[in-house]
Amino acid sequence: MYKDKKDKIINDTVYGFICLEDNLINELINHKYFQRLRRITQLGLANLIYPGSNHTRFQHALGSMFLMQRTIEHLRKKKITITEKESLALKIAILLHDIGHGPFSHALEKTIVKNISHEKISLLYMQKLNQIFNNKLNLSINIFSNKYSKKYFYNLVSSQIDMDRLDYLKRDSFYTGVSEGNIGVERIINMMNVVDEKLVIEEKGIHSIEKFLFARRLMYWQVYLHKTVISAEHMLINILNRAKELVQQKYLIYSTPTLLPFLKNNYTYKDFKNKVNLLEEFALLDDYEIYTCIKQWCNEQDKVLSKLSNMIINRNLLKIKIQDKKFSSKIIEKINFTIQKKYNVSYKEASYFVFTKKISHNTYKIDEEKINILLNNRKIVDLTKVSDHFSNRKTNIKQKYFLCYPKEFNNIF
Amino acid sequence: MYKDKKDKIINDTVYGFICLEDNLINELINHKYFQRLRRITQLGLANLIYPGSNHTRFQHALGSMFLMQRTIEHLRKKKITITEKESLALKIAILLHDIGHGPFSHALEKTIVKNISHEKISLLYMQKLNQIFNNKLNLSINIFSNKYSKKYFYNLVSSQIDMDRLDYLKRDSFYTGVSEGNIGVERIINMMNVVDEKLVIEEKGIHSIEKFLFARRLMYWQVYLHKTVISAEHMLINILNRAKELVQQKYLIYSTPTLLPFLKNNYTYKDFKNKVNLLEEFALLDDYEIYTCIKQWCNEQDKVLSKLSNMIINRNLLKIKIQDKKFSSKIIEKINFTIQKKYNVSYKEASYFVFTKKISHNTYKIDEEKINILLNNRKIVDLTKVSDHFSNRKTNIKQKYFLCYPKEFNNIF
Amino acid sequence: MYKDKKDKIINDTVYGFICLEDNLINELINHKYFQRLRRITQLGLANLIYPGSNHTRFQHALGSMFLMQRTIEHLRKKKITITEKESLALKIAILLHDIGHGPFSHALEKTIVKNISHEKISLLYMQKLNQIFNNKLNLSINIFSNKYSKKYFYNLVSSQIDMDRLDYLKRDSFYTGVSEGNIGVERIINMMNVVDEKLVIEEKGIHSIEKFLFARRLMYWQVYLHKTVISAEHMLINILNRAKELVQQKYLIYSTPTLLPFLKNNYTYKDFKNKVNLLEEFALLDDYEIYTCIKQWCNEQDKVLSKLSNMIINRNLLKIKIQDKKFSSKIIEKINFTIQKKYNVSYKEASYFVFTKKISHNTYKIDEEKINILLNNRKIVDLTKVSDHFSNRKTNIKQKYFLCYPKEFNNIF
Amino acid sequence: MYKDKKDKIINDTVYGFICLEDNLINELINHKYFQRLRRITQLGLANLIYPGSNHTRFQHALGSMFLMQRTIEHLRKKKITITEKESLALKIAILLHDIGHGPFSHALEKTIVKNISHEKISLLYMQKLNQIFNNKLNLSINIFSNKYSKKYFYNLVSSQIDMDRLDYLKRDSFYTGVSEGNIGVERIINMMNVVDEKLVIEEKGIHSIEKFLFARRLMYWQVYLHKTVISAEHMLINILNRAKELVQQKYLIYSTPTLLPFLKNNYTYKDFKNKVNLLEEFALLDDYEIYTCIKQWCNEQDKVLSKLSNMIINRNLLKIKIQDKKFSSKIIEKINFTIQKKYNVSYKEASYFVFTKKISHNTYKIDEEKINILLNNRKIVDLTKVSDHFSNRKTNIKQKYFLCYPKEFNNIF
Repeated sequence: MYKDKKDKIINDTVYGFICLEDNLINELINHKYFQRLRRITQLGLANLIYPGSNHTRFQHALGSMFLMQRTIEHLRKKKITITEKESLALKIAILLHDIGHGPFSHALEKTIVKNISHEKISLLYMQKLNQIFNNKLNLSINIFSNKYSKKYFYNLVSSQIDMDRLDYLKRDSFYTGVSEGNIGVERIINMMNVVDEKLVIEEKGIHSIEKFLFARRLMYWQVYLHKTVISAEHMLINILNRAKELVQQKYLIYSTPTLLPFLKNNYTYKDFKNKVNLLEEFALLDDYEIYTCIKQWCNEQDKVLSKLSNMIINRNLLKIKIQDKKFSSKIIEKINFTIQKKYNVSYKEASYFVFTKKISHNTYKIDEEKINILLNNRKIVDLTKVSDHFSNRKTNIKQKYFLCYPKEFNNIF
Repeated sequence: MYKDKKDKIINDTVYGFICLEDNLINELINHKYFQRLRRITQLGLANLIYPGSNHTRFQHALGSMFLMQRTIEHLRKKKITITEKESLALKIAILLHDIGHGPFSHALEKTIVKNISHEKISLLYMQKLNQIFNNKLNLSINIFSNKYSKKYFYNLVSSQIDMDRLDYLKRDSFYTGVSEGNIGVERIINMMNVVDEKLVIEEKGIHSIEKFLFARRLMYWQVYLHKTVISAEHMLINILNRAKELVQQKYLIYSTPTLLPFLKNNYTYKDFKNKVNLLEEFALLDDYEIYTCIKQWCNEQDKVLSKLSNMIINRNLLKIKIQDKKFSSKIIEKINFTIQKKYNVSYKEASYFVFTKKISHNTYKIDEEKINILLNNRKIVDLTKVSDHFSNRKTNIKQKYFLCYPKEFNNIF
Repeated sequence: MYKDKKDKIINDTVYGFICLEDNLINELINHKYFQRLRRITQLGLANLIYPGSNHTRFQHALGSMFLMQRTIEHLRKKKITITEKESLALKIAILLHDIGHGPFSHALEKTIVKNISHEKISLLYMQKLNQIFNNKLNLSINIFSNKYSKKYFYNLVSSQIDMDRLDYLKRDSFYTGVSEGNIGVERIINMMNVVDEKLVIEEKGIHSIEKFLFARRLMYWQVYLHKTVISAEHMLINILNRAKELVQQKYLIYSTPTLLPFLKNNYTYKDFKNKVNLLEEFALLDDYEIYTCIKQWCNEQDKVLSKLSNMIINRNLLKIKIQDKKFSSKIIEKINFTIQKKYNVSYKEASYFVFTKKISHNTYKIDEEKINILLNNRKIVDLTKVSDHFSNRKTNIKQKYFLCYPKEFNNIF
Repeated sequence: MYKDKKDKIINDTVYGFICLEDNLINELINHKYFQRLRRITQLGLANLIYPGSNHTRFQHALGSMFLMQRTIEHLRKKKITITEKESLALKIAILLHDIGHGPFSHALEKTIVKNISHEKISLLYMQKLNQIFNNKLNLSINIFSNKYSKKYFYNLVSSQIDMDRLDYLKRDSFYTGVSEGNIGVERIINMMNVVDEKLVIEEKGIHSIEKFLFARRLMYWQVYLHKTVISAEHMLINILNRAKELVQQKYLIYSTPTLLPFLKNNYTYKDFKNKVNLLEEFALLDDYEIYTCIKQWCNEQDKVLSKLSNMIINRNLLKIKIQDKKFSSKIIEKINFTIQKKYNVSYKEASYFVFTKKISHNTYKIDEEKINILLNNRKIVDLTKVSDHFSNRKTNIKQKYFLCYPKEFNNIF
């Protein structure tokens, strides 16, 4: 239960109690940049499919920090030296790793802040917070940017088995109710060790790592790339892109004052770095803002915007098909044509309702995966060398294609 | 996983799988009045204290329906006749029991729809849906209004041990992480029986009921009446009341078009019954709308509105004290006076920042509680007659008083 | 997973991983006196009623030690000084607190080792182990005997909220499936603190303690004093007492060599202290030994022994009635008389099948309970002074009476 | 809580409540042949490694029946007709599927009842119970023997995804604490369907089945074929074989009367079928019996028997090495020779302490696995055709070799 400054235990649905072990952490959490994460869901529109998945970036950030605490405690028991200062820096680095996320997490990176990764924005926020907190975040920033001498610190913050992944797999599996995706974080952490400044997993932990990779793959297909989730997210992307298009063409559509500049302008990373207030303005955005606009857009004259908005708000989503090979342009043209006639819209407008894209589960690149296994004989090898299950596979990049289209054209197939 | 019409299983974080057993249920869930519940949190601002409690009225409604299904299955195993038609009606009655809730659930009943209980509005929505669905909800409405001949049906929907309470205690305990509030719903349902159209609990279930009442009391003090939750909710109430005040005095403040009529007008129950569009407009309100306005209000000229809004958004809450006896008006006057000076506001404006009220856990009135226990000798008695734990207590109404005030005046005490 | 000496992590069903943090602990666990606890169930015959409750004293001892580790870690975070030596001693004291338990835990204290508490025998074993391990257990023995200067150490090992109770309530609730008895050990430990060498619970932990006491009471009535458990345990007591009686009257009945001396002799605490081999012989006893004998006794000529043995083995238990007032001797005499005729046995023999006793849940003496609460104002008061729920009760000692009798006489009532 | 005949709900640690839905089931459970399963652990000596795994065949049988109930309910919702009579027969068939297991489950099949599978003995018990219960088990026996017309009934009792496996994986994972082995039984059952009397898994369940197979493999390497478990089980086998050898050579060693005939004789399946009392005598065996004998054997003159017995009782196990290729006979001979000298025993006797064998996880034969997947287009294909994860693998039979030897010879390597 998290009450006020002197009260430093937070109840977490997944882990129980999370202890804020330093006043600086407490102050960072209380900062408005961080509080804002309460209003950004971790899984965006996945709650349209898994109604339990309303957990937020705020929870995920705290959870990742909790796992970092456990890992530090554990490594110290194995006689790895981590100073108090390093410990605090590690915890802050992971606490803030996602602070640059915009509304609906990933969908926004394709619209409002096109082509700027949230990691980059996270770093900008960390630098700003570093000014506010008198350079107390220097070491955290070094770790986050992989500039610190102990290289495995970076791996704890960002790697195939970093605290971020351990937490989000556990948490997303928990809230969606996809119990097959559950992983044994406690055991994985227990199996971690450090040899020559490298993060390794002890041999007896191989099965846990295999389970972890298996669960990750399962979560991709069952949640992150669930077909209905894909449909919903691309509808959201289309809505925001359409709104931008209209605003930039000087059409008058509803907007909250907060969102408006992000519709009017195509901000670049440079802008984020140079414009004094942009980070501040971005910090006001959240899921609530977007949803409020979408609700108003239900009544806009523009057919594309109003139709798509209505569909999202009332969960009446575009139909989606997924297959291994590309969809023929003929079928897409045919549907587009029918939409033009039926909705009385242009070709371009129709293409907001029928579209195809490639998806690939590219985080599951076993071949590139360097999970170091510490054998009982003290040698360090790559996981693929010792796992029955994940060895000798040429590639695990699975590419698929999806096609979205309005339900009423289902009979075209 | 809940995809589309023909796919009728929904993942629930708490119970696992919830099966929609009838197409009418599916259609009701897909209706925009119901979909809207996705955007209303079950516990309002409690997530400022328990960051995991982001679950929605949508989830609670489905969960309550699931428990109704289990109860019906169970009672049928005990040879209680419940026809298919009755079964469907019971499930719909509980599914829709909260459909009249406004944003942030309870806080709104003291501002936007002052003095109109959500149950009344729920009934209006049910009647409207009844028209839309060709009177298929007649029986559900009868049950919900306690007009159906089998009186225990009403108890399943509304009583000391109804499906609503079973679900919300279980669910709120789960998401807040207050594990002490967890209850054994499966066991309680197993102990239910019907004798002479009365809902009874079999004697061997007494301990489970005691546990249930104990957990309920605990959840009140630890969650629903948690001091910081009280502070946050009253700040929200003050914000909305201040906004209404300003709008009604013709001050120009920001509002989304959707919220505006509810700020301008003081709608009565009569209005809800008679104004053709009011239900429709009310259905557009949700937590997101309110939050978006509050964020804009942070910049209003009015000090009360902007200060309180900033405090909520950045979780910088009023301090709160709770005690058994009333707070002296002297101390309140003293703080009010200091606020006037410090903030340069009037007495009335200052009273938005320092205020006291009575709280009472009045749902815990053991004396009025009629939980029927079916003894092994087939007699039916009230719980208080057979429970060691909940007997011979004159009253369990615990009254307390709270005082809210700005942190900076802490030294006044 | 617990493999061999250098592998010091044990999987626990309840807590996950238990780490053996010192080689001495590892060696103590590997000693045959401790290994024997693997063959003694924690809840004796309760598995006849709750088939999942097959957990052992071995698991409970490890679990209690785990909670001690957590408590020590936690108290150290609150700046309480506990040296490494003290920490190890505390862990060993709790690890060995039950090492003197005989087969079926409590039932044996009324037969095989009549009138010798298992705590006394535990101390003897600790002293013997102290010799074996070169006095390394001195401090543990001091703590266990409440002779150590830091008085709260003893409270961690033995008090109303000691590690023993925290573990057994959690564990017994878990394995029996009586989920209402589940307690939040992590939270209780988090609320512990030490003031003036006294163990206290911080004010905000009151609800958790109330929950703990409530759960304890519930577990008593639902598990430990469950009527069928009482019946089974008293049948076991009668079986062993009958076997002793027969052996001591020189009747030839089956016995394993290991059990025989305990049937022949009525050992006293003095015997345990003085006879060189008695502790060694006692260490060979376990549930398995007793069960093996009972199975053979099914075929003994003696009707009492064979009948009762058959009833236990095939779970065909004596009927039991429980009531608040004493059972009339008239009804007991009547049943006894009928048994004599029907089974062709003497009055005394018949009294093995019909008997009455008092039971009282005497561990629930709220009045004597000294659970210290540390108020926010730094005063320390007794729980009953600040708990709504457990205050102003004259007594909570609930006395009841039970009557056991063969099923076939059910119609006598 | 399972009290007596009229009380038909049993608490299960894993599933909560198990309802006995028919009086015949209740009577079968109360029969001594079934009650005996309370005294046979599911995982034999695995509790020496995972101390929580003390669950019994009794629990597993009930759990499997519970899953059968759920499956029947579920299939009926999918409009598959299963009559009441069939439903009862299915439940009984799975309830009794393991009733022929001897002490320590599998270890006994290599000693006491050499070369007779427990399935065969289960069938004999079912036939005997069929006589006792007036042929009410006819249909169950037909299903169990795969003679019933609805072929998928047999698959529910015995196949790659039968109720037996679903329960034991879930249960063994739960009790051992190897959480990576946990499977989503509820979801798998939800995905089951019947087409043309074939049991199929609907396409959207593929991930759950993959997860199930993955978990099974993991449980094999982490639990069932855990190296220390293998060592312990082979020591037990050696103990019993040595005891038989000695008894059959007329050496006088301790034995309970119950075990003696099984040491003296090498019973064949024919014996079980023809000897009137053999089934009755076998029913008296359980883990407790064996353990009691082993404890006595600790003091036998025979060095092999006493040494091995002591090692098991005090958990001082043979060291074990596992590798992909055979162990050289040279090293084995060398160790054997050293043992002969050190223990003063013969070559043959020494080979009880040093021995090698092949192990293979042969239940994981993906190629033979016929798990039918019902595609969305209504075609039925084998799992390997549609699973990314379990396709195109030549074989999954993984063969390994182990070598057991006394710890003190560790330096030989």
